[in-house]
Amino acid sequence: MSIESRLEELGLSLPTAPPPAANYKPCVRFGNLLFLSGQLPMADGEMKYSGRVGKDLDEEAGYKAAKLCALNALAQIKKELGDFDSVATILRVDGHVNCTPDFDAMPKVLNGTSDLLKELLGDRAGHARVALGHHQLPLNAAVEIAMTVGLR
Amino acid sequence: MSIESRLEELGLSLPTAPPPAANYKPCVRFGNLLFLSGQLPMADGEMKYSGRVGKDLDEEAGYKAAKLCALNALAQIKKELGDFDSVATILRVDGHVNCTPDFDAMPKVLNGTSDLLKELLGDRAGHARVALGHHQLPLNAAVEIAMTVGLR
Amino acid sequence: MSIESRLEELGLSLPTAPPPAANYKPCVRFGNLLFLSGQLPMADGEMKYSGRVGKDLDEEAGYKAAKLCALNALAQIKKELGDFDSVATILRVDGHVNCTPDFDAMPKVLNGTSDLLKELLGDRAGHARVALGHHQLPLNAAVEIAMTVGLR
Repeated sequence: MSIESRLEELGLSLPTAPPPAANYKPCVRFGNLLFLSGQLPMADGEMKYSGRVGKDLDEEAGYKAAKLCALNALAQIKKELGDFDSVATILRVDGHVNCTPDFDAMPKVLNGTSDLLKELLGDRAGHARVALGHHQLPLNAAVEIAMTVGLR
Repeated sequence: MSIESRLEELGLSLPTAPPPAANYKPCVRFGNLLFLSGQLPMADGEMKYSGRVGKDLDEEAGYKAAKLCALNALAQIKKELGDFDSVATILRVDGHVNCTPDFDAMPKVLNGTSDLLKELLGDRAGHARVALGHHQLPLNAAVEIAMTVGLR
Repeated sequence: MSIESRLEELGLSLPTAPPPAANYKPCVRFGNLLFLSGQLPMADGEMKYSGRVGKDLDEEAGYKAAKLCALNALAQIKKELGDFDSVATILRVDGHVNCTPDFDAMPKVLNGTSDLLKELLGDRAGHARVALGHHQLPLNAAVEIAMTVGLR
C-alpha cells in the first residue's frame, strides 16, 4: 500500500510543505543522502503546538506535536522526490523538545515522530534517534525535528 | 592490540548495549556510514550520572559521564558490527551537556568522550565535535552523545 | 570570481582557523563528505560575541555572531582542502543560539550564516538548516554552528 493510501486510512494528510523562509533549502540531496531542514509542528501556515512541554502542553500534546513535525518532514520529502519510492530508510532523527527544566520524558514526546514513521514506512522507518531538551525553539514551537534520509 | 584487550588493560568494560525503548534503532547502517542513537551514561540498566553539571555534578563527574556515554556508543557499535575492525574513523560526535546556565565548560566535560576514543581507537578516533549545553536531557542524564561512524 | 576575491570585495577576511583544543579534529573528511566541528564567533583567538541573545546581545549582534561563525567554518574548510574548488554544496548547518527563554527568533540570527554562505558560494551554498535555542554554549559564545559539506 502506498504511503498516501496509508495516510488516508489513518485519517491523516500531509500539510503543505513550508517554503524556505531565508537563504537555505528545505532539502538538500547529495548522492543517496537527503538532508532536511528542521521541521516545526505547523499546518496551514500556522504553528499548531507552541510553548513548553511540562507547562504549556502536556506529554500527550507534545506527542501530537512531534507527529505533526514528522508529517511536515514527509511533505518535504514528497515535494523533493515526488513520492516515497526512492526512500531506502530514514537514517537519523534529531528530536528537540521545548520543555521546562523539570521535564525529562523527551523520548515519550518524540515517539509521536517514531510511531508515525513506523506506521507509514514499516521496515523503511529505520532511524537512529537523538532526543534533546531545549529551553526555547524557533517561533516558540513545542517540538522541532531534523531528519537525514537514505535513498535508493 | 584489539579494542577489547585495550579496554581490559584500562580496567574498563563495555556495558550491555541498551535495547531501543521504542520505534527507533540503536544503529542504522547505510553504505559505509553508521548512525547511532543518542547514548546516555547508563550501566546495568541504571542511569549512573544524572542532574546538571555545575550544580548536581562537578566537571570531573561530567567527564566520567561523557566517558560512560562513549562506552555505551562502543557497545552499540560492537553489537551492530560484531567487532571494531570495520570502523574506519569516527566522523562526528555531538556532545550534549545537561548544565546550569552559568556552566560553559562543556568541551572539558566532553573530553571524557574524546580522550577515551583516542585511547582506544588511536588514529581511527577522528571525529569532528560539537559541544552544546542543555537545560535538561532525557531521564535527567548529565550527558548525552550522538555519533556518526565511517566504515571501511 | 574566487571566494577569496569575493571576501575581499565584501571587506571580509577569513580568521585563522582555530586549532583543535583537545582530542578531536576541526574537520574529518570521509569520501565526499566533510564534517566540521562546532564553530564559535571567534577572531584573533578571542571570543567576539558572548552572552545571550535577547539580553546581552540584540538580534543584529546575534546575526553578526552567526556570520563570524560561518567565516570560521570557511577558514577550517580552506585549511583542510586548500581552497574551495572541491566544495560541491553545503549539506547541512546546525545553528545553535545562546538566548533568553523568551527569545524565539533564532532563524533571524542564523541568517547571518546563511546570507554569507549564499553571498560567497552562490548555488553551492545549499544547506538544510536546523535552528535551535540553548540556555548556554561553550565559553559563553552567543552562537555556535556545525556544518556538513559535500565535496566533488
